[in-house]
Order: sequence, then C-alpha cells, then structure tokens
Amino acid sequence: MTRKIRLGAFLPGGGQHIASWRHPDQPADGATNFEFHVKLAQEAERGLFDAYFLADNLSVGFGGGVEGGNARIAGLEPVTLFSALAPLTKNLGFIATASSTYEEPYNLARKFASLDVISGGRAGWNVVTTATETAAQNFNLDQQHPHAFRYRRAQEHVQVVKKLWDSFEDDAFTRDKKSGVFFDKDKVHYTDHSGEHFKVRGPLNVARSPQGHPVIVQAGQSEDGRGLAAATAEVIFTAHQKLDTAQEFYRDIKARARGLGRDPSHILVMPGVAPFVGRTEAEAREKYDRLTSLILEKDGIALVEGLTGGELDLTGVDLDGPLPPLAPTEGMKSRQALIRQIATENNFTIRQLYQWIATARGHFTVVGTPVQIVDILEEWFTNEAADGFNILPPWLPTGLTDFVDLVIPELQRRGLFRTEYEGRTLRDNLGLPFPQTRWALARGATLAAE
Amino acid sequence: MTRKIRLGAFLPGGGQHIASWRHPDQPADGATNFEFHVKLAQEAERGLFDAYFLADNLSVGFGGGVEGGNARIAGLEPVTLFSALAPLTKNLGFIATASSTYEEPYNLARKFASLDVISGGRAGWNVVTTATETAAQNFNLDQQHPHAFRYRRAQEHVQVVKKLWDSFEDDAFTRDKKSGVFFDKDKVHYTDHSGEHFKVRGPLNVARSPQGHPVIVQAGQSEDGRGLAAATAEVIFTAHQKLDTAQEFYRDIKARARGLGRDPSHILVMPGVAPFVGRTEAEAREKYDRLTSLILEKDGIALVEGLTGGELDLTGVDLDGPLPPLAPTEGMKSRQALIRQIATENNFTIRQLYQWIATARGHFTVVGTPVQIVDILEEWFTNEAADGFNILPPWLPTGLTDFVDLVIPELQRRGLFRTEYEGRTLRDNLGLPFPQTRWALARGATLAAE
Repeated sequence: MTRKIRLGAFLPGGGQHIASWRHPDQPADGATNFEFHVKLAQEAERGLFDAYFLADNLSVGFGGGVEGGNARIAGLEPVTLFSALAPLTKNLGFIATASSTYEEPYNLARKFASLDVISGGRAGWNVVTTATETAAQNFNLDQQHPHAFRYRRAQEHVQVVKKLWDSFEDDAFTRDKKSGVFFDKDKVHYTDHSGEHFKVRGPLNVARSPQGHPVIVQAGQSEDGRGLAAATAEVIFTAHQKLDTAQEFYRDIKARARGLGRDPSHILVMPGVAPFVGRTEAEAREKYDRLTSLILEKDGIALVEGLTGGELDLTGVDLDGPLPPLAPTEGMKSRQALIRQIATENNFTIRQLYQWIATARGHFTVVGTPVQIVDILEEWFTNEAADGFNILPPWLPTGLTDFVDLVIPELQRRGLFRTEYEGRTLRDNLGLPFPQTRWALARGATLAAE
Repeated sequence: MTRKIRLGAFLPGGGQHIASWRHPDQPADGATNFEFHVKLAQEAERGLFDAYFLADNLSVGFGGGVEGGNARIAGLEPVTLFSALAPLTKNLGFIATASSTYEEPYNLARKFASLDVISGGRAGWNVVTTATETAAQNFNLDQQHPHAFRYRRAQEHVQVVKKLWDSFEDDAFTRDKKSGVFFDKDKVHYTDHSGEHFKVRGPLNVARSPQGHPVIVQAGQSEDGRGLAAATAEVIFTAHQKLDTAQEFYRDIKARARGLGRDPSHILVMPGVAPFVGRTEAEAREKYDRLTSLILEKDGIALVEGLTGGELDLTGVDLDGPLPPLAPTEGMKSRQALIRQIATENNFTIRQLYQWIATARGHFTVVGTPVQIVDILEEWFTNEAADGFNILPPWLPTGLTDFVDLVIPELQRRGLFRTEYEGRTLRDNLGLPFPQTRWALARGATLAAE
C-alpha cells in the first residue's frame, strides 16, 4: 500500500485566527454553538479528514494566547462535544485534548473509553500537561507545578490510563444467558498500579472498544515533551515554520521511538498548517489581508503577551519596534522559543509579529493556490518532515470549505490522499495497529490484529 | 396550573433487575451498546418522561450491589453517554450522576455546563459522595474518607460548582463584530473561592445555557444527606417501601428547605418505583416470577453482601434462614438500614430478601394492573409523599414500553400527567425556576425569570 498523507482538522468553533469571529462568514457565537460544530464535523467528513482535533484549556485565556482570542473565552469541553458529534458522523475520528496534570487517570480513562465505544472506535486522546498559572489556580494551587514535574506525572498518567484500558480483554464478555455466566473472570484484570504520583487498583468500568483503545496523541516539543511523545504517542502534533526544523524534529522522534523498541511507522508526525487558499495567488493574499485587517491592536498585544507565558508586559512599548527579550518560564517553553525564532528570523516588529501569529500562533501559515499549497505539503511529506498535517483553517466554515473543495482534490489527483475512508475506526484510517492488551501480548499475541 | 406528577426514568442499559440481562427481551450487551441506549432515550421521550436518569459508580462492582449485577461491570460514563443522546432527542432531560468526592469542581462544572449547552438546557447533576472502598482505591486512597467528611466536602463542592456556573451573566456576550468587543467585562466574574476543601479562582470557560445551569439532584437519606439535599437540591431521588416513611421524608425535606429560606415547591421529592405492569394482575405477577426465576443463587448472595457495605460474609449461612446482624459502616448508611428494615418487616429469609431486592435494591416494587399502579402513585402524590417518581423498569426495553403504553395513558386519563412537553428545558418541564446568577440577584433580580 502506498503511503498516504494523514489529515487532522483543527476546528475550534470560535475560529482559529484571533480576529476570525469578526469575519462575516464566521458565526460570532461559534465557540458555544453546537449546530455550528455539527456543520464543521460533517464538512470535515465530506473532506475525508482522519480526525476532528480540538485543543483545550482549563481556564479562561482572556485576550490572547488561545486560538480565536476573546471569542474563545467560553467554549465546550471537548469530550462532551465530540460525544454529541459522534452519532451524527460515520467515519471521522475525534481527537480531544485532556490534561494529565488536572484530571485523575480513572476519570480520564473512563470518558475517553466511553467516547471510543459510543463512536465505534473513533476516539483519540491528545495528552497535555496544561501550562498556565490560571489553570493551576482552578485546581487548588497558587502556581503551577514545575515543567519537569508535570512531564514525569504525564508519563506515569499515560501508563496508568493505558493499564486501565486493558482491564477487560477483547473476549472477556461471554454473556451466556443460559448459564448466567456474564464474563470470563480470567480475562478481567485488576490494574494494581502504585507509582510516584498514582495508586490505582482498577479495573476500569468501561469495556474496550472496536479499536482497542483511543489513539494517543501528543504535541510536546521540549526535551521532556519529545521523550514523552517518543515513548507513548501514536500521533504527534507539531509546529514548524520551515522544512529543515520539521525534518530535524521528524528524524529525532523516529530515532527516539526506534531506540525505545517501537516501530517508527507507528508514530505519525503531523505538523500544523494554516492555509489561506485561493484560486489565484491574489485571491489567497486577499483572504489573508482581510483577516489581518480585522485584528484590534490590543488583541494583538495580548496575543504576544499570552504566547510568551505572560512574563512580557508590552505596555508603552513601541509596536513598530522589535520584541524585548524573553525570560524562560515554567509555562510553554517550546512555544516561547518558536515565537522568538519567528520574530528574529523574519526581523519582525511587534506589530508584524502579531499579524503573522494571529492566524495560528506559530504554526506554518501558507498563502497560495491549491497547487502551491500541495507542492509544499508534498515536499514535507516525501522528505522526512511529515506523515500528514493538522490543518488549521484560519476562519470557519469557509477556511475549511476552501480546503475541502480546492486542496483535497489536488492531493487526490497526485495520489497523496484517500478517495474514500479505509475503515470505520480512527486506527484503521490512520494505518495504526490494533493494540492488543498487555495480557494478550504476554500470551504471545502479535501487536497488529490478524 | 394544576400540579402534575413528574417522572424520571432510570434506564441502565444493562437492566435494573440483577437477572434482567438473562431475560430474552433484554440485549445481554445493553450496558455498552450505544444503539440500545438511543432506543431507550427515544422510548422515554415517547412516554413524555421528564428525564433519563443514570446512576454511576467509580469502580467495578463485581457480583452485587449495583443494578443489573454482573451485566453492569462495564458500562459508559453518564455525561459522555448523555451528550451523544442529546442531539437524537428533543425534550427529554438527562440527569447524570457524578461524584463530589472524586471529581474536581472545575472539571465537573465544565462537563455538565457543556452538556447543558449542547442539549439546549436539558442537563441535571445527581450529586453523590461515592461510598465504596473500591472507588477510593481507584483514586490514590487505601480506604474511603469518613461519611461526615464526604458530606462536608460535597456541600462545598456544590457551592463551588454553582459559583463557577455563574461566571458569565446571561447577557455577558455582546459579540459585536463592528467594534470588536466580544464580551462585557463587567458581566464576567472570577469565582475566587477559598474554603476547607477547594481553592478555585475561575471563571469557568463554558457559558451559561438556556436553563441557567443544570438542575441539581440528590439522593441522600442519612442526616448528613438530608441536610445537603435540603440546602442544595432541586430534585430528590429517594427510596421508600411504604407511604408513611415516604411522608415522613417528604415533610422533613420540605420543612428543612423552608427553614433554610427556600420555597418548598422548588425542591421536588421523587421516590423510586419499580413497576411490573400487566393487563391483568396475573400477567403482572407472571412477569415478576419470570425475572425471579432467572436469579442465580450466588448472584443473590453477592447482592445482599454488596448492599450491606461488604461487611457481611454469607459463606455457609443458611439462605432459608434470617439475615445475620449488620454493623454500620462508612459506606451507604441509609441503604443498609433500608435493607435491614425490609428483611425485618417482611420476616424475610435471605433467599426471599434477595429475590425481593433483586429488582431495585430497596426501591418500592409494585406488581399490578395500570389502575392498581396509578392508584398507588396517586395516593403518594396527593398525600405529601411524592412530587413525582423515578421509574425503574425492572428489565429493558419491555419494562419501559409497558409503562409507556399502559401506565402513562392511565395517569393522563386522571389528569395527573402531561399530554405534551411544557417546554424545551428540563427546568421548564419540571416547573423549576430559572436560576439568576448571584450577580443578577445582587442587583435585585427575582429568582424566577420574567
């Protein structure tokens, strides 16, 4: 089978670009409008996307730092939202973000396993450690745990959740009405985890789903983040501006995975791409300029301040001058470095910086025709920079519709993308193996299902 | 407006009676079968029920103590399930159980607020403190917190969640595309809670829904439980075998609510009723006997052991003799007392006891014709014992279909039950007031919406 590009769609109902809610096409209440999310999901499925992807925050990010800016201060919890979208779609996967720092493994394992059962095997968990002081303050803390602590906890958290998902073997339930034997007690297992951060006896009270368990997704870029991703992730969401840094990341992750005894083809690297698509270059540029013109200066400032971990105060600083130096914080280390890199390499003023990152906060922004955009995607895909992409339409629904109507056909024409879904589960579509339980593996089962 | 009976439907997909999964009508995989839950929800809506109600556990209850017995060892997390059912129904409410002991207020407030937004105002939260050692062991504990501690925490937990639900006033979002002003900052509020158990800054990152916030439901029977319910609940689920104890409870709750300055008509008392309905008495009895004949002796024993807090070991005890004495535990105090009361008052052997509680674990079981059943419901409703009932069909879907086809028309004939839904939200249908935010109340808003 030829290797195909995998596509996720990042579709926050409130829009991606910080001014998107002001665009005439975008419902201003999109973040909390359920019917609008239904429309987005069905549109992504029409485009044969692998998955609908949602970020998540555990606090209100006033002003900047989150997609959609102020339009996103109130939204919906991703698993609850995706569960409602599941019966209204057939093949689309749902990758929801949830925090290893502020959710208990038992609760998290349950809700994702439930979504996976309800959707017939279309769930994914994007593991984040949640890096903001404001989130910590919603969970009995005055300030967040140190970066290294959060990543150690994350590593153990994922381990516990995966153990919980192995509570019932795939053939544990006999359900024999005649004898009254409901389950095979040799195929139901206690978790019996006891570690630095968690003590969990199990079993989980949700059964395994058609895809075994949800796909594990991560986005860590720092040294700790890469280590966690290489050890546990099946899909990695990443942010790069250029082919060479994307390649460095791709090769590093694959090498780390190989070093840990994993098959590198079972860990898909998917950089984010925010496309402005036009039938002509001028039309694409016009779409970009239109959104840029809608940015309020104060929202742009808040965005830069927010993305740099809240340590930067731009009050009184000349917006048409360079960015002041940044101190590293316990927050989003890799994102700070990326923002700094974008400013330096492009020699951006603060204003130019916020106009550029307003679309996708550091993700690769491409402005062009379908052919130009697919040229870039193909180059990355065939040169060890990407196994697929997370598409971040700058505003909705038009940014998504443009991609489905203009870019997808060009990808298909070149044989780079599917023309129909391969299967019913997210794993089937991503080409990821079915995860046998550790109990079946101990008995000699092979990793991929027969 | 004449006072009407309110009806909840307790519909665990795996069935209520511990042997229900062995009944030919009941899908043996009902607990994890999403399509079956869709069918149940749509059937409950056909019967004009106020709400679909689900209990919840945070551990696997092997053998007994939970509805459906072993058929329930794996199920679905209620909020995730209800969210998927919401778009497939129009008027039915969804009351999900969630734990104040093992969920963080911020996470819990988010998922219920999200369900409330997605369903257009049809969510309810059944607050439980989760009384099992097995649950504690899934959350880093060796044994559960003492009963009184759990209730103190619950009181504060509900308070924090309600404060979080007040983060945005109903008119907080201006969303003015022209000026770029998305919200009115005077109508977005920090929570700033700091108490014995929780420190939560807020605001919540989910907006208020059409019903203000989810309906608060509780089921506490103990002194602590009644205190919590009278202070915070809008619906109380309760278990009684006889009119007089139901009346004592009803009057006590209403008096406590009045004592706390609440309008007693804004706290609905709904005892559980498990009906075996037949066109004739003989047909109803036959349905009861049929299910009873499907109980395995070992499952009956596990049920009695489970419901008495796991402190009782019936190994080697004569099942045709009386129940040995029970010591009070830190678990479900009121349920133990009820089981003991049923055994004593009926002079039951252990076998007779498990056969009786196999249906609904202490809830009122009625076996009869529609007229006989409605006679009882009407007596309780008109004599200060109930504002409505939670119906626990012993097996599914037939136990529910019987109720919808036979009992509902008799209730309607007597003018005791609606013939169409009054409104779109759960509050509208239950006749409960719209909760103004505390900010609006401070400015002099009245409790009920104009």
